[in-house]
Amino acid sequence: MNTSFDRVRAIRWHGDHMTLLDQRLLPAQVEYLRIDTLHECAQAIGDMVVRGAPAIGIAAAYGVVLGARQAQRSAGARWCEHLYSELDYLAGARPTAVNLGWAVQRARAVLRNGPADPAPLEALAIAIHEEDIAANHRMGQLGAALMAHSGGVLTHCNTGSLATGGYGTALGVVRSAWSAGHLKRVYAGETRPWLQGARLTAWELVEDGIPVQLIADGAAAWLMRQGTVGWVVVGADRVAANGDVANKIGTYSLAVAARQHGVKFMVVAPTSTLDMSADSGEQIPIEERAPAEVLQAGGRPVAAAGAGAWNPVFDVTPAALVDILVTERGIIEQPGRKSIRQLMQR
Amino acid sequence: MNTSFDRVRAIRWHGDHMTLLDQRLLPAQVEYLRIDTLHECAQAIGDMVVRGAPAIGIAAAYGVVLGARQAQRSAGARWCEHLYSELDYLAGARPTAVNLGWAVQRARAVLRNGPADPAPLEALAIAIHEEDIAANHRMGQLGAALMAHSGGVLTHCNTGSLATGGYGTALGVVRSAWSAGHLKRVYAGETRPWLQGARLTAWELVEDGIPVQLIADGAAAWLMRQGTVGWVVVGADRVAANGDVANKIGTYSLAVAARQHGVKFMVVAPTSTLDMSADSGEQIPIEERAPAEVLQAGGRPVAAAGAGAWNPVFDVTPAALVDILVTERGIIEQPGRKSIRQLMQR
Repeated sequence: MNTSFDRVRAIRWHGDHMTLLDQRLLPAQVEYLRIDTLHECAQAIGDMVVRGAPAIGIAAAYGVVLGARQAQRSAGARWCEHLYSELDYLAGARPTAVNLGWAVQRARAVLRNGPADPAPLEALAIAIHEEDIAANHRMGQLGAALMAHSGGVLTHCNTGSLATGGYGTALGVVRSAWSAGHLKRVYAGETRPWLQGARLTAWELVEDGIPVQLIADGAAAWLMRQGTVGWVVVGADRVAANGDVANKIGTYSLAVAARQHGVKFMVVAPTSTLDMSADSGEQIPIEERAPAEVLQAGGRPVAAAGAGAWNPVFDVTPAALVDILVTERGIIEQPGRKSIRQLMQR
Repeated sequence: MNTSFDRVRAIRWHGDHMTLLDQRLLPAQVEYLRIDTLHECAQAIGDMVVRGAPAIGIAAAYGVVLGARQAQRSAGARWCEHLYSELDYLAGARPTAVNLGWAVQRARAVLRNGPADPAPLEALAIAIHEEDIAANHRMGQLGAALMAHSGGVLTHCNTGSLATGGYGTALGVVRSAWSAGHLKRVYAGETRPWLQGARLTAWELVEDGIPVQLIADGAAAWLMRQGTVGWVVVGADRVAANGDVANKIGTYSLAVAARQHGVKFMVVAPTSTLDMSADSGEQIPIEERAPAEVLQAGGRPVAAAGAGAWNPVFDVTPAALVDILVTERGIIEQPGRKSIRQLMQR
């Protein structure tokens, strides 16, 4: 048995390149992909080699460093100008997770100071990475403190070390609550079509020695009806200024069912995922991916040839269905426009 | 393009044996399995070669005929007695669909008359099969009449020709409503873990030239939020005397979301699926199948080794969430104990 805890890392920085754990191959194969350029980084984000809003932000921050080094080699002293034109390309790799744009925005702010070389961008990327891990540990404590004697928890998608710099958002809360002895059972929705729950979350929990029961996504409401789950805990890809939450498809369905059953619904998201420029969920772009993702399962076509599919990969849960928002700056009960603004001003 | 409509048949009777379309292999392979004995029939039901409450009932009725012929060969004039002892075994092949016990019960009633040979059992099985197809066409008309200008419909699992004698229950309503020009869009939940929606329903609809969009089960509430779906239409494995509905896992989640979004929820079930001896859904046994079904997808293991799974394959939707119950004897709005009793006395 593996006695180490939270050992997995999705992103590793090696000074002149980055390696990404290829999450498309897990859990069958544990392979790292070497990333040498900004374009390779954008490609890896688009292809879901790396996924999860915070992890996408961190990978992009390192991608900027790689882009800066290339620009320096090709454009010399005019490297900043050259890099600027690449940043939109990187920021457009995926639309929904705001951390991607947020990380690129922080890089732009550094560039505005006219640095002589890319060193401040590397310092920024490392800081974003370390801040994220620290935020996750803090959110883990804050969220777990609410879960004493709560019996079972249901989580969705993967929000663990693989989705972040390390430890995780919602899965960080599960880790902390489990360590504190607050939980009897951890359930994970398998999260079709990409099966992040089955492939990634179960893998992280097994590695940590935390017993996990997977469920088909459609079984969640019936699970809640059994009375063995006190909390649903999820992450977020973007939280709007009014508290609406864009997250992995299936989240909204869980929130509706949780409210119906008196199960508490917790969203765990660092402030890097809060987008004060999005007035509500209606301003959040929802990515639709290829129908082929739904038409296959386990890497094989399963549906009849000729069938179509609708494949929105995120949905928006209205703030009214969120009981608790956990950030590294503190907790908000029944989050709304005013309480979120106050939190962001802390 | 295939111009015939409702061409597929799950069960074919050949006088001295039955062939079952092996639904485990669809849509990749279209293979029929030959069934010569009552035990082979029970095995095929347990292994889900044939599935769907009405189809299970029909297959069992033919299985009784095969058992009667065997009993006659081995026990001569005492064949009835010998067959009686086998009927419990057949009735126990799967627990939730009441049609299995119902078909065996009808066979027992025939045996109580002390028939000289199995011919009356064969006549019964053929009648059950034909009655089911006729009931489905009638329910298709009744259900479709409610759907004028309803835009989109979402269905779950497979309730078509493969799940019945032919035409289908909920999918029969979809067929009729589509033919009548009432529907703009047909959505089907893929129905993990067994993917009946992706593998079977999509196949039937493609064969009939009805365009279908599959969705991940978790996407259903988000689909309803888009406002493009007017009805959720499902079948049933057992309806209790108070109107509670046991059906494929995921149905309850759809009913909760439908009510939340003002989407109408229709259950289509022949009276053979109504169990007046079950006072409420609490008396309906819910089958749990092997965790392995959730831990795999497309025939391959997908979850991390060491992960568990909770795999209830049915759930119970309370009558209060059912807007319309369609049977071959008529429609009930907001079904309850009294209206169901009246229907069964017609």
